[in-house]
Amino acid sequence: MMLEALREQVYKANMELPRRGLVCYTWGNVSGIDRAEGLVVIKPSGVEYEELTPADLVVVDLHTGATVEGALNPSSDTKTHLELYKAFPALGGVVHTHSPHAVAWAQSGEDIPCYGTTHADYFYGPIPCARHLTQEELDEDYERGTGKVIVETFHARKLDPVAVPAVICHSHGPFTWGKDPAQAVYHAVVLEEVARMAMFTRMVRPQAEAAPGRMVEKHYLRKHGRNAYYGQGR
Amino acid sequence: MMLEALREQVYKANMELPRRGLVCYTWGNVSGIDRAEGLVVIKPSGVEYEELTPADLVVVDLHTGATVEGALNPSSDTKTHLELYKAFPALGGVVHTHSPHAVAWAQSGEDIPCYGTTHADYFYGPIPCARHLTQEELDEDYERGTGKVIVETFHARKLDPVAVPAVICHSHGPFTWGKDPAQAVYHAVVLEEVARMAMFTRMVRPQAEAAPGRMVEKHYLRKHGRNAYYGQGR
Amino acid sequence: MMLEALREQVYKANMELPRRGLVCYTWGNVSGIDRAEGLVVIKPSGVEYEELTPADLVVVDLHTGATVEGALNPSSDTKTHLELYKAFPALGGVVHTHSPHAVAWAQSGEDIPCYGTTHADYFYGPIPCARHLTQEELDEDYERGTGKVIVETFHARKLDPVAVPAVICHSHGPFTWGKDPAQAVYHAVVLEEVARMAMFTRMVRPQAEAAPGRMVEKHYLRKHGRNAYYGQGR
Amino acid sequence: MMLEALREQVYKANMELPRRGLVCYTWGNVSGIDRAEGLVVIKPSGVEYEELTPADLVVVDLHTGATVEGALNPSSDTKTHLELYKAFPALGGVVHTHSPHAVAWAQSGEDIPCYGTTHADYFYGPIPCARHLTQEELDEDYERGTGKVIVETFHARKLDPVAVPAVICHSHGPFTWGKDPAQAVYHAVVLEEVARMAMFTRMVRPQAEAAPGRMVEKHYLRKHGRNAYYGQGR
Repeated sequence: MMLEALREQVYKANMELPRRGLVCYTWGNVSGIDRAEGLVVIKPSGVEYEELTPADLVVVDLHTGATVEGALNPSSDTKTHLELYKAFPALGGVVHTHSPHAVAWAQSGEDIPCYGTTHADYFYGPIPCARHLTQEELDEDYERGTGKVIVETFHARKLDPVAVPAVICHSHGPFTWGKDPAQAVYHAVVLEEVARMAMFTRMVRPQAEAAPGRMVEKHYLRKHGRNAYYGQGR
Repeated sequence: MMLEALREQVYKANMELPRRGLVCYTWGNVSGIDRAEGLVVIKPSGVEYEELTPADLVVVDLHTGATVEGALNPSSDTKTHLELYKAFPALGGVVHTHSPHAVAWAQSGEDIPCYGTTHADYFYGPIPCARHLTQEELDEDYERGTGKVIVETFHARKLDPVAVPAVICHSHGPFTWGKDPAQAVYHAVVLEEVARMAMFTRMVRPQAEAAPGRMVEKHYLRKHGRNAYYGQGR
Repeated sequence: MMLEALREQVYKANMELPRRGLVCYTWGNVSGIDRAEGLVVIKPSGVEYEELTPADLVVVDLHTGATVEGALNPSSDTKTHLELYKAFPALGGVVHTHSPHAVAWAQSGEDIPCYGTTHADYFYGPIPCARHLTQEELDEDYERGTGKVIVETFHARKLDPVAVPAVICHSHGPFTWGKDPAQAVYHAVVLEEVARMAMFTRMVRPQAEAAPGRMVEKHYLRKHGRNAYYGQGR
Repeated sequence: MMLEALREQVYKANMELPRRGLVCYTWGNVSGIDRAEGLVVIKPSGVEYEELTPADLVVVDLHTGATVEGALNPSSDTKTHLELYKAFPALGGVVHTHSPHAVAWAQSGEDIPCYGTTHADYFYGPIPCARHLTQEELDEDYERGTGKVIVETFHARKLDPVAVPAVICHSHGPFTWGKDPAQAVYHAVVLEEVARMAMFTRMVRPQAEAAPGRMVEKHYLRKHGRNAYYGQGR
């Protein structure tokens, strides 16, 4: 089988989704990319996690989307993953889930405000909510269109996808990403927790305000800046 | 014992309710139907799930409601199940629970709006809330009346019970159904999750709006339409 | 040791509280009564559930409150239990917890409305919220006063404690009871679930209305009335 | 290795955080102090709980903050812990978490009101919310500044840190403390539960009022006053 190491990473990252409580049934998928080969490994469509094996994963071509290896259909969201990989060269892994609190914000059609340091430790500002697709975009190619609208959102708002490794799609749900599949899942877990805390904050105080910019900057940069001092410098 | 295979399906489907966290104590029941025989297999009334065995299930006649096999009383909701089987020929299994988020919408007396794709992937539009029974309906036959009001709701709104396999009854709770008992339970799980996400959406943004019709159509049809492309075509 | 059988019932009922997720640390207690002997068996104060043994339970005199057997101090809430047993002869067991949703209603100072059939199946009408104690009542005997105010609430509203086996005390939390310690705990579990559903109902629709009286009557009586037909008639 | 007994206490207290569901990933830390030696034992920065061993803990000097023993970097929040130990001589252990309900109140920028006896049993009045740091304070020394602002809050409001063993920092999260690391974690668990109940109370009744002062006093003093009668007098 091709891409043994990446396949194993993508498999483990997929299995982390139910372990972390982010998916019900088959509602999620993780992919990983081999940039040198131009190939993406992704979960097959509609396969239950408890039945999933590394051999079930599908290898698709980054540019054509054609299946290169694998007996099963790739995730129905594959084209969205491919658009993200093509537009954002820093991405090594992509995740889609229907985790309930992130979905609630997506269904509300609002950005998730950066209410505090839990959020700022991982996301440098609000999590953007990407707009609805038009009828034309839906008719042409829904999944590719979803990817294009995400990319448009980041470009229009001049967001760096490494500093804000997540998006929520209006009336749909979240996509997250990272340098590899494991980090993409890590960001999916953090996004769900941050979305939950933000919802709780609204429940405590509907008119709560975002954290001051200086705190967001301080927390993001103490973990991710040039002089970061969080962790063990590994 | 009669209907061994169906009995086993109904037993497994019943046991899935506590495993998925949908029931507290005895607050739920699943049935399955053998259309050829005109017989329905259903959980006995008030028996704890941890004590339930396949042999405890009760076989009742679809048309008369009489017990055909079984030492225990059938679920007190049996007549509601029978009304649904009689009115909707596509049904192979029916579920009733008091899952808390679906109950919250039932207690609010509102349809569950289709706020997003998680909902639209399984339910083609809002989950209808069936009206209260009148004093006369309650006095005459409460459980049969409940079934009749559900059927009336689907007819009055011209809803297809296959495309919208769930209802919530005002001040009461949900019923779901499917082609077999397992799918009926699957829909009960999805309904609870969708009800939870819809409640969360209201908490984030009380004035949130339903998903655009074009998105509901796209998501429902990519899974269930003639040209469905989700899953493995199994 | 005295009252072996009752002691075992009270022990099992106490251990059910953490198993059902109703208590954090030592925040709950269950008692049972031997009416013939005029003795009450109750959890000791401040003992962790994981360390509790049947021998740790304390036997107190119903009328004097004096410890009749046991090396440990009885629950600090013992006098409240005794007031309930003295005023309500049908009670065989009493439970106090700080289960979070019931506490939320107690802290709001509102009765829990009967929003639906899950509630009506066990409680024939709203769960009353007992008033605050006055400074004088607090100074005289806080725990006995708590019991007296609960009894006053039931008398003033002409409530039957068998039909409404629960109360919430303003700014404090719930007490429930039953024919024996096991049923008292069962009612504590149901109360928490009903309080959760009622809170969810407010979140879906703040102006939600209580269930019609005819539905409350129908559901309560189909389980508890002279012609009850729920369950197996055991 | 130095301070074997304290190290073991701090290790156990740290491991209690994930066991009690208070932390996601590495979002928390516990320290303990040896007052005679002027040394503090604290979790290393960014180390996963499942990989943590007692030998990984770092010993730092109370006054200089310098690492006295340990190969890893101490928690990035170390200076905040040290400020609390220096200002409040009664503290034997300090905890920081991002537990979600306490964070929600911190993100709302409001004190947690004392809505009832669950709160009053442990905290003698509202949990204060400490103000944001200014730009100058952030630039000078963020973590030390956080500690200073907490101390300022207690001094300005004339609060006794033993009677109110918790604070929430605006847009950030909670710190709790106790006579030793185990009690500091106990208070972190209680704070999260109290914050959850307070949020639920707002959801039931946004305009809910704090418990009467006489009840807060009664409950706090029956557990902690000179004539305390809760528990076994151990």
